Amino acid sequence: MTKARHIKFGTFLSVGGEHVAAWRHPDTAPHLHGSFAANLELARAAEEALLDLILVADVGPPILAPMESLSTDPVIERLDPLVTVSALAVSTRHIGLISTASTTFEQPYHVARRIASLDHVSGGRAGWNCVTSSNVAMALNFSNREHLAPAERYARAEEFVDVVRGLWNSWDDDAFVLDRDGPRYFEPAGLHVLNHAGKYFSVRGPLDVARCPQGQPVIVQAGSSEPGRALAARVADVVFTTHTTTEAACAFYADIKARAASYGRDPDSVLVLLALMPSIGPTEAEAKERLEALDRLIPAPIALARLSAKLGSIDLSGYDPNAPLPEDLPAGTGMLSRRQPFIDLAKREGLTMMELAARTAGNRGHWTVAGTGVQIADAIQQRFEVGAADGFLLVPPLSPSGLGDFGREVVPVLQERGLYRTGYDGAMLREMLGLPRPAMA
Amino acid sequence: MTKARHIKFGTFLSVGGEHVAAWRHPDTAPHLHGSFAANLELARAAEEALLDLILVADVGPPILAPMESLSTDPVIERLDPLVTVSALAVSTRHIGLISTASTTFEQPYHVARRIASLDHVSGGRAGWNCVTSSNVAMALNFSNREHLAPAERYARAEEFVDVVRGLWNSWDDDAFVLDRDGPRYFEPAGLHVLNHAGKYFSVRGPLDVARCPQGQPVIVQAGSSEPGRALAARVADVVFTTHTTTEAACAFYADIKARAASYGRDPDSVLVLLALMPSIGPTEAEAKERLEALDRLIPAPIALARLSAKLGSIDLSGYDPNAPLPEDLPAGTGMLSRRQPFIDLAKREGLTMMELAARTAGNRGHWTVAGTGVQIADAIQQRFEVGAADGFLLVPPLSPSGLGDFGREVVPVLQERGLYRTGYDGAMLREMLGLPRPAMA
Repeated sequence: MTKARHIKFGTFLSVGGEHVAAWRHPDTAPHLHGSFAANLELARAAEEALLDLILVADVGPPILAPMESLSTDPVIERLDPLVTVSALAVSTRHIGLISTASTTFEQPYHVARRIASLDHVSGGRAGWNCVTSSNVAMALNFSNREHLAPAERYARAEEFVDVVRGLWNSWDDDAFVLDRDGPRYFEPAGLHVLNHAGKYFSVRGPLDVARCPQGQPVIVQAGSSEPGRALAARVADVVFTTHTTTEAACAFYADIKARAASYGRDPDSVLVLLALMPSIGPTEAEAKERLEALDRLIPAPIALARLSAKLGSIDLSGYDPNAPLPEDLPAGTGMLSRRQPFIDLAKREGLTMMELAARTAGNRGHWTVAGTGVQIADAIQQRFEVGAADGFLLVPPLSPSGLGDFGREVVPVLQERGLYRTGYDGAMLREMLGLPRPAMA
Repeated sequence: MTKARHIKFGTFLSVGGEHVAAWRHPDTAPHLHGSFAANLELARAAEEALLDLILVADVGPPILAPMESLSTDPVIERLDPLVTVSALAVSTRHIGLISTASTTFEQPYHVARRIASLDHVSGGRAGWNCVTSSNVAMALNFSNREHLAPAERYARAEEFVDVVRGLWNSWDDDAFVLDRDGPRYFEPAGLHVLNHAGKYFSVRGPLDVARCPQGQPVIVQAGSSEPGRALAARVADVVFTTHTTTEAACAFYADIKARAASYGRDPDSVLVLLALMPSIGPTEAEAKERLEALDRLIPAPIALARLSAKLGSIDLSGYDPNAPLPEDLPAGTGMLSRRQPFIDLAKREGLTMMELAARTAGNRGHWTVAGTGVQIADAIQQRFEVGAADGFLLVPPLSPSGLGDFGREVVPVLQERGLYRTGYDGAMLREMLGLPRPAMA
């Protein structure tokens, strides 16, 4: 490399930790996910570790049957993502704040307005994690009418993003002149009315929010299906993805960059962040034991229910959990991005259904590395340098301790190698990520 | 009175001030409405004056024609209300925070989740200003499909509020037991699935937010039409209203209390807050001159455009602005709550159209009192004691100076008379307002 490239880092905001049994671990304080104090503690730990961004997900409630399994599942209560990031915007100083909003259940005017407002309140640190919603339980909360087939969901998402970006260009940077003598509150030539009329939306504009500090907030996307990749490559600034092998990660990375180029974009203007669950210990053995201790806290029915969901909400009750994963699994519905990687993993390692369930329930199927700080740094550097990712989305098994461990044990190693920022320089999120400021259309 | 009753006070969050020409006044700093720093300064001034609550309105953009008049109108840029109150929740400590959300363009699940989250983040200081949207320009941003006739808008609003309140009762206060040994994250008996299926909405639930600190956030309503009063009397904890005469205010007050009783509610559990624009000066003459100086800053086309909007978006261009307001005005559309009070005012005082426009454009038609601190306190006490209001919504012509004046000149007078709190006691918003904690349905 002719010039040191910093690796980008983000984290999910997940009270207690990302491991499904984190809430049962004696080292975590027993907070509700919906405790703002606990969320704030995580955000501050992420900022202390100098991460670039925090992502607040919005997965929706799980399907509420059977109740028995649900009563041990911690994802049923949380805070609204937008409320959370808005409160964090004035409780943190440097870190980027990404809020999830669904193109399936929301209106583009609302999303454009809220994420733009977040950019103003945070001084240019806002991003929108643009998702489509396949969650059946969620559709039941929105009068069902928005529960679209996958192809329709993505067609709607494509138009939705275009409307949002159009609304973000409603005003020139210097449109609001506040000329008291004129009097002229804004310069009429600085106003651009969108007048969008499409298949799914008809939106006149303008947005009633001045142009953002960043020009436009950062757009984040995580689709791995064919239409998801197409959307990400066309519009996303940051793409989150999850792959357990270097080969799969490199293939995805190359695919996104090539697709971006085919849309006439500079491939460097689309960053691919790979999910990583780091278990950090003073020795590799101890780091592994920490993870296994967490895995032992997962009840078997929870592991199987999660596996069923990730395979596409299919009914696994008719199969022997102690036999290999059947070849003839029924087709799935809902979010399918993990289905094939899970099937591949079972085949590759010859796992029974229960073994696959146990292995993937705890870490939610993410790339998991257990080791010392140096070992984790090595693994990160290796994937970064072979072209598997521009950066990593940390999903620590326990939080905030996992973020603290990362900041103490891994960050200094990467800093010494010239691969990690040594501080925040007050830049806006786009600048931190090395992304261009969007021009007016 | 056998027991001192405190008067309740709130204010609109309005950068620069509520007077339509405030932004042109040399005493205000030339901030955008969408400056969070300016919003925060107002919130802190309101908390310093010991007010009970701040209301963040959401009036939507004005109709964008003619552009010439618009270019002097300051209401075209702002921050999203929910983002604003969420950031204020962690920047203030005591004051209630009311966010507006429209039953016309939103989904009840979203509103329930966001306002409940705000209650958690703020430690029990959240409220929802439940509005129906008549703004045609706003409907054009939501694919037109939601632009309903007034009767439909209110029918939808009634069902919307019932769904939101039902979702707020999804969980018992102690449902989340976080029993690690069980393991049991929540107690299944503490979960209540709504299963709502109505004319406008089908919402299964449960809400993915734990029960609020307040049990349920405070519901605020401002309708003055027949269906608006019915909705307010049935569901609101706080009703905002605007009347210029004592008689009209008393009649409205008595009507709301009687309607509330007819729904089986304790009339004291519905608080009526009357809008008040106080212009405070060292002498009455100086207080009046301050207001008139502001009125002189309103360009005539702006005054007439605002009058047209308040009379129901009717075209006034065919009338002589210097003749009396015509008897045969065409029927209006849109928000009609000010139309009759304005027509009555013109008739009562024999005003020309232009005089009515000038008089009502500046103060937006609110009850306006110009005088010394003692005179303002007298006017407040008089209306409070004759049964015109339980409290007042302050709309200072200039802000934050108007809130500072109120805190310094009016509050001590009312405190001395036993009519105003002398501090915050750490209570949640419902307790501050003397409202009961809602029981589970």
